Amino acid sequence: MKRIVVALGGNALGNTPEEQVLKVAHAAKPIVDLIMDGHQVLLAHGNGPQVGMINFAFELANEANNASPAMPFPECGAMSQGYIGYHLQNAIQTELQSRGLSKMVATITTQVEVSKDDPAFQHPSKPIGRFYSKEEADILAEERGYTMKEDASRGYRRVVPSPIPVGIVEIDVVKSIVDAGHVVITVGGGGIPVIRQGHELIGVSAVIDKDFASATLANQMNADSLVILTAIDKVKLNYKQPNEQSLDTISWKDLESLISEGHFHKGSMLPKVQAAISFVKLGKHREAIIASLDDAKEALQGNAGTRIISE
Amino acid sequence: MKRIVVALGGNALGNTPEEQVLKVAHAAKPIVDLIMDGHQVLLAHGNGPQVGMINFAFELANEANNASPAMPFPECGAMSQGYIGYHLQNAIQTELQSRGLSKMVATITTQVEVSKDDPAFQHPSKPIGRFYSKEEADILAEERGYTMKEDASRGYRRVVPSPIPVGIVEIDVVKSIVDAGHVVITVGGGGIPVIRQGHELIGVSAVIDKDFASATLANQMNADSLVILTAIDKVKLNYKQPNEQSLDTISWKDLESLISEGHFHKGSMLPKVQAAISFVKLGKHREAIIASLDDAKEALQGNAGTRIISE
Repeated sequence: MKRIVVALGGNALGNTPEEQVLKVAHAAKPIVDLIMDGHQVLLAHGNGPQVGMINFAFELANEANNASPAMPFPECGAMSQGYIGYHLQNAIQTELQSRGLSKMVATITTQVEVSKDDPAFQHPSKPIGRFYSKEEADILAEERGYTMKEDASRGYRRVVPSPIPVGIVEIDVVKSIVDAGHVVITVGGGGIPVIRQGHELIGVSAVIDKDFASATLANQMNADSLVILTAIDKVKLNYKQPNEQSLDTISWKDLESLISEGHFHKGSMLPKVQAAISFVKLGKHREAIIASLDDAKEALQGNAGTRIISE
Repeated sequence: MKRIVVALGGNALGNTPEEQVLKVAHAAKPIVDLIMDGHQVLLAHGNGPQVGMINFAFELANEANNASPAMPFPECGAMSQGYIGYHLQNAIQTELQSRGLSKMVATITTQVEVSKDDPAFQHPSKPIGRFYSKEEADILAEERGYTMKEDASRGYRRVVPSPIPVGIVEIDVVKSIVDAGHVVITVGGGGIPVIRQGHELIGVSAVIDKDFASATLANQMNADSLVILTAIDKVKLNYKQPNEQSLDTISWKDLESLISEGHFHKGSMLPKVQAAISFVKLGKHREAIIASLDDAKEALQGNAGTRIISE
């Protein structure tokens, strides 16, 4: 029996409620495969398209009618956790029951602490929400203090910082649920980012990378495995080039060398391999696995995906 | 030490995110008073104004731009649980810490099972969302199958059923959190209403009364006390009439007689006293308390509010 943190990409969820119901039913199968094999599973997930959809709706509504309040980004994140968690816990519960397992699944509204001194706050980089014209963007920058950036030729978008997670606020509750034998869904969308001010936690408009948040969760839970499920079957060198090469098993130190050689794309594989390394390097018997959603079970058995190990 | 389910009215929360942050900071104090007195607290809350606000935003957004998807009512409820829970858990956590208590608070995305045979499904009565003209209402009835009702002279509104709760889906997880000594926020807005179809739980557009859901929670948790906090200091007979009379302590049987005499308003006090009775009548040493938010501590000590007892 292993304690496993599974990180599910936002692309495994879907852009509308109807699509999400279908997609999470698919995602539930490989996750329940792991539970059937006797493992203790904690599930983290992305929320990029979903929190974008919620944020977009509140912006449109507020523009159409002032009676609809502006909704800050952390609150949109909290909503996305409830919305995704509701579908995901249901899909996993249904899959568990149809296989005769009587475990419970629950979603925790999860905050993740970040440092107000994180250098990311000086360099907002993560685009969120809808596109605006230059004129609209200037007004938002002026009136709300948003940082607006031109995004290719499609217009202007708000950008927010992507700070590093410091710790999961509700970790003790997560532990008590796992210890009782239940499946927990937590750090949805990387968690609601909060900074500490005395006894208060203040939500900040930022996006915590869900793979880094999952690595933090795995570390605080002292998990055996961090499994990052994505659309690709293995980590690749020279991706989509004639000399493309898949990685099967690699030590975190060798993977770090490959990073410094510039092998991985900033917006896609780089945060995944960095998150994997950050977890594996802190414990002797830890492993991280990067694999496609449908290969989860085989990957954990060592027959698929890329395995990152300590030595 | 008592195990207490506290039901907080949606009016204690607020209509905008800014207002909600202020109001939950106020609500946190009497709740933490109970924890300071050594009690185990589970917190339930309403979501009427909040789920209405979320539903309204998604309707406006979908009308303004088809790229913003229509959002079913159960999903809006799930969002409201994340949104309210985030603010509420933070406010209670802050209040706990400022008094030197190191308990954790967490919100569970909570589904509540209802029966598809509940007669309420034949008589939708609970208005939700925005007002429409007769023409718009006819189109919604035709295209989406909504039941639309004229609401005084303000136009037409969608009405949904208000079924009786059968059981809380995530109850085992709630138990494990409480057993570990944490404070749990659950059945927000009466819970996301679901009906069972084989191994699946299907969300339905309905509103479960939060006081009935709280009574179900208190019953399933075998709580000692159900505390319904509201805007009024005690249950009254002949409310706002010259012969108005406050109730201090009353048996559930005597309270039932008063109900049959027509003493309580359908939309306000009636569901509270009915919920109180439904909890108290099922156990010898149970009590229910209906009191104002600020009197929570005194009410539990027997010095404020109305106490409903078994004999």
